[in-house]
Amino acid sequence: ASESNLIRATLFPGDGIGPEIAESVKEIFRVADVPIEWEEHFVGTDIDPRTQSFLTWESLESVRQNKVGLKGPMATPIGKGHRSLNLTLRKELNLYANVRPCYSLPGYKTKYDNVDLITIRENTEGEYSGLEHQVVRGVVESLKIITRQASLRVAEYAFYYAKTHGRERVSAIHKANIMQKTDGLFLKCCREVAEKYPEIKYEEVVIDNCCMMLVKNPALFDVLVMPNLYGDIISDLCAGLIGGLGLTPSCNIGEGGIALAEAVHGSAPDIAGKNLANPTALLLSAVTMLRHLDLHDKADRIQDAVLKTIAEGKYRTGDLGGNSTTTDFTKAICDHL
Amino acid sequence: ASESNLIRATLFPGDGIGPEIAESVKEIFRVADVPIEWEEHFVGTDIDPRTQSFLTWESLESVRQNKVGLKGPMATPIGKGHRSLNLTLRKELNLYANVRPCYSLPGYKTKYDNVDLITIRENTEGEYSGLEHQVVRGVVESLKIITRQASLRVAEYAFYYAKTHGRERVSAIHKANIMQKTDGLFLKCCREVAEKYPEIKYEEVVIDNCCMMLVKNPALFDVLVMPNLYGDIISDLCAGLIGGLGLTPSCNIGEGGIALAEAVHGSAPDIAGKNLANPTALLLSAVTMLRHLDLHDKADRIQDAVLKTIAEGKYRTGDLGGNSTTTDFTKAICDHL
Ligand SMILES: CC(C)[C@H](C(=O)O)[C@@H](O)C(=O)O
Ligand SMILES: CC(C)[C@H](C(=O)O)[C@@H](O)C(=O)O
Repeated sequence: ASESNLIRATLFPGDGIGPEIAESVKEIFRVADVPIEWEEHFVGTDIDPRTQSFLTWESLESVRQNKVGLKGPMATPIGKGHRSLNLTLRKELNLYANVRPCYSLPGYKTKYDNVDLITIRENTEGEYSGLEHQVVRGVVESLKIITRQASLRVAEYAFYYAKTHGRERVSAIHKANIMQKTDGLFLKCCREVAEKYPEIKYEEVVIDNCCMMLVKNPALFDVLVMPNLYGDIISDLCAGLIGGLGLTPSCNIGEGGIALAEAVHGSAPDIAGKNLANPTALLLSAVTMLRHLDLHDKADRIQDAVLKTIAEGKYRTGDLGGNSTTTDFTKAICDHL
Repeated sequence: ASESNLIRATLFPGDGIGPEIAESVKEIFRVADVPIEWEEHFVGTDIDPRTQSFLTWESLESVRQNKVGLKGPMATPIGKGHRSLNLTLRKELNLYANVRPCYSLPGYKTKYDNVDLITIRENTEGEYSGLEHQVVRGVVESLKIITRQASLRVAEYAFYYAKTHGRERVSAIHKANIMQKTDGLFLKCCREVAEKYPEIKYEEVVIDNCCMMLVKNPALFDVLVMPNLYGDIISDLCAGLIGGLGLTPSCNIGEGGIALAEAVHGSAPDIAGKNLANPTALLLSAVTMLRHLDLHDKADRIQDAVLKTIAEGKYRTGDLGGNSTTTDFTKAICDHL
């Protein structure tokens, strides 16, 4: 790729195993000749002695300028007064939709075959409002806030995603039989958007029933869209169906066309720096970033190489039952490119 | 059983398939010589023209007096101003804990073997407060209420249940990393109770992670206790692991020692009156009622007969892939008694 064609993308390697798995992504992108130039920023809990900051203005500005980025795992700073860095990024960058494609990895057997789901989570409000009070001693309340604006925005994204990714159906997940006003408003917004996409089937499923159906037969669903907490729960449930958070990509969509892909697993401090971490989730997240940039050829090539390497089973990291190092696994992927 | 030894228990057959499956329970209890005298009351949406009531004072009073009861499925009355009858019963009878034993049925294969979980759900508050408001146009809120009293009460029941049922561990399920005040108070109460039961292991698991672990390996859990909505979600997820709501018993524990067992599946109006319904969930719920009454011999005998009949596979209702009628399935169970 010639200098002038390079797309600048922000990279937050993150904490713990973050730098190692970010190294793996960089290496694979280099070998696959992806026309991306990384702009690396430190965001994490290992405070930089120079800035004394977990998260600098420059880091946020980098994502705002580049509009695409990739982030590794981030631990939550210890001590009062610090929200999780993940939540801070969602808020500061207005990352309103969290998209998690969840598909069975050929050759990596779980109880479920052919899972192919997309969860789309409202990422800014709902049960995550942060509004909580003590009413009287021994009685506390949390406020769940649902707005028409945020609900329409995520519903729009879900239908747009379904349409542009050849998906057939969007299921809105809710508990409007109990929370008639909040989840009711969410559903109303989904219905309004559904009318604009007559080619996409639309249905509404109560969250408890949805979870039961997912464990019985995940093929019953296609694209799922839902308020924040249900998305948190269901996206992890779906990840469990195919093997866990170490294998599932995630991408956050923000206002103004921002896409910040992220590995949603933890920073695994116990194995950090030991060359044992599995870069799959970060890699597949990077692939969603490439798709967002319409670099589908590169995305397909890298995704195929990752899946082939896992399917072959010769090089697998410890979490997948193998004993490869991160670098050996990365080399194996490069060999498949 | 001699007249004088009879225990009076309330029976609400309910709507749809309710009366048929209740008939099956009565027949099996008769054959097993269970010392119970049923006091039957109509509660349901098929309005009694004489009382014009979905739920009479006498029906509630019957449960309050007898302290034990069994209820079939109830549809939600159509039209404004009617809460679900299920919720009304929970509220009126102060049914503070919903207990669902969830175990693999030998011979009925699902993706999971040897599931053996107990979910204990706080049943009166949390996200089910019914408090919702429009803040301004397009902005609505729901209040989640957690009280020290209700949290202690359900935690007490969970540990008491674990101890009296030979269970080793109680896991409190929460999202206190986000809802620090509400779920935080719930956890605080669980911890306080845990200290009084040093022989029972105690742990805290975040709900998203819990769902992922459950689908990967349900054997990681034993007894789970949680706020209302998480209980709603996780108990259905667990039911899905072993085959669905048609197979899982449920019992509601109320103030003053009330136990109201219930089938949690729907009223299945499409097959009502056709002698096709599966009485298993109602039967196994009735078994939990017998255990509550310390009638363990009868409980074991009936449970064994149900499980054997399903395991043999000769008589199974349509929902389990067979083509037996409700009465044939019931007879087969009676033959195993
Ligand atoms: C770490 C936690 C605050 C976060 C969430 O609840 O959103 C995580 O579970 C996630 O899904 O990204
Ligand atoms: C029907 C509905 C109101 C109810 C609930 O949400 O509690 C049901 O799902 C249950 O679990 O009993």
